[in-house]
Amino acid sequence: MTRIAVCAPSTPITREDAERVSALALAEFPGVELVIHDQCFAVEGHFAGSDEARLDALVECANDPSFDAIWFARGGYGACRIAETALSRMNHAAGAKTYLGYSDAGYLLGGLYRERIGKPVHGPMLADVRRAGGDDAVRRALAFLSGGGEGIEPSLATERHSVAAFNLMTLAMLGGTRLMPGLANHVVMVEEVSEYLYAIDRLFFHATAHLGGIAGLRLGRVSDVPENDRPFGADAQQIARYWCERHSIAFLGTADIGHDGANKIVPFG
Amino acid sequence: MTRIAVCAPSTPITREDAERVSALALAEFPGVELVIHDQCFAVEGHFAGSDEARLDALVECANDPSFDAIWFARGGYGACRIAETALSRMNHAAGAKTYLGYSDAGYLLGGLYRERIGKPVHGPMLADVRRAGGDDAVRRALAFLSGGGEGIEPSLATERHSVAAFNLMTLAMLGGTRLMPGLANHVVMVEEVSEYLYAIDRLFFHATAHLGGIAGLRLGRVSDVPENDRPFGADAQQIARYWCERHSIAFLGTADIGHDGANKIVPFG
Repeated sequence: MTRIAVCAPSTPITREDAERVSALALAEFPGVELVIHDQCFAVEGHFAGSDEARLDALVECANDPSFDAIWFARGGYGACRIAETALSRMNHAAGAKTYLGYSDAGYLLGGLYRERIGKPVHGPMLADVRRAGGDDAVRRALAFLSGGGEGIEPSLATERHSVAAFNLMTLAMLGGTRLMPGLANHVVMVEEVSEYLYAIDRLFFHATAHLGGIAGLRLGRVSDVPENDRPFGADAQQIARYWCERHSIAFLGTADIGHDGANKIVPFG
Repeated sequence: MTRIAVCAPSTPITREDAERVSALALAEFPGVELVIHDQCFAVEGHFAGSDEARLDALVECANDPSFDAIWFARGGYGACRIAETALSRMNHAAGAKTYLGYSDAGYLLGGLYRERIGKPVHGPMLADVRRAGGDDAVRRALAFLSGGGEGIEPSLATERHSVAAFNLMTLAMLGGTRLMPGLANHVVMVEEVSEYLYAIDRLFFHATAHLGGIAGLRLGRVSDVPENDRPFGADAQQIARYWCERHSIAFLGTADIGHDGANKIVPFG
């Protein structure tokens, strides 16, 4: 039996989505027990409860030795406010777990990786059930957490370097903070959603300045780019190549990750 | 006679705005000669001409000893792509000038201040003529550049620390790059426009991590905040106070700067 705790360090989920995913897990993953923390449904302003409530739920789940994994419920924004304190409170049981999420959960994945606590993994979250292909995203996450090897980002099959994956904005914001892991000699994958191309360019200006010594960069999907009042003049891959070249970072091509139902799994390391 | 060169390291202006400002200068500032570089009207994708064209115009104006000041035409996005190379090409004449702008021009102001080239100043740009109170913003800029002492941000009258002012996004993106100036023992003023409050919070998470050792922070106007699908739960000043407190940075109150016609002048240093 794989026991998975779900908590929400960022924004809340609905009971409807939780029930839909619980039903899918019950029907298709008999070896999985999904325990969804009530904090996932709390609402305080933008967040799934106060900083204290989100922090307490995360640490409670992480430090409970009866859980094998923490599955982050949803991104949005908010994990960076509690990540540093959460890491400082984690015990030995927290170090024996897998942590699965992406987007805003990247602050936690980055911090966990930096502190060498457990196994951070970039991949689908519970709230992805709402997306097109959402059921498959949830299946991919549950199959991975229960020990399956499917759903791994395809370039990893032949990759000999360590890897990490982030939302580009999250990675840009991590740079220079106490949550930023050392990524020297890693292949770093980035993806983005709902940002103008000029903002993508700006984020690459910043993020690549913090990625000295990486083995290379792969670009995941850059989706739902808003239309600006004029064309930017380069697409997302041209932007990525430009900034990689400026910083002598090898551009290695695409990565099968993104804010969508097809988002594949990238175990850090 | 004060000779002012206008160039556009970011995005273009219209000939109509240029003519309106030239007419105002001619009518009200007989001691000012305004020379608007043709590059200000160039368009290539998002930018006022290619990186090379913007770079060449900026370096040409900066290195021309017959100009006393460079007035940046407009923000938007793009200065970070050319700033480092521009600084490396600047000569002694560039070091004798004042550089006035804000928003995206902050990449240049920051880099100039870091490299101790000339006098970087945060204040209105030519394109501000379009704003409510735009004529007054232009007058404030021209009066300052021709040696007047009005229009200075009011807290500077009694401030004993060195100061610097930035758009919050620009400052966040500068952190950790080769354009980021040392701001230890400075009072740092920030302002923002058109960002969600959760993004403001995220930018403060990042920027305050790069502001260790500053003398304090002042918050300019945070304007045109888009309405999100739910309230954030704190206003911009509460957000600024929260992150200042986390990093033991003194929060010193407001600053009279912002993306508006009332934007006051902050000479760096």
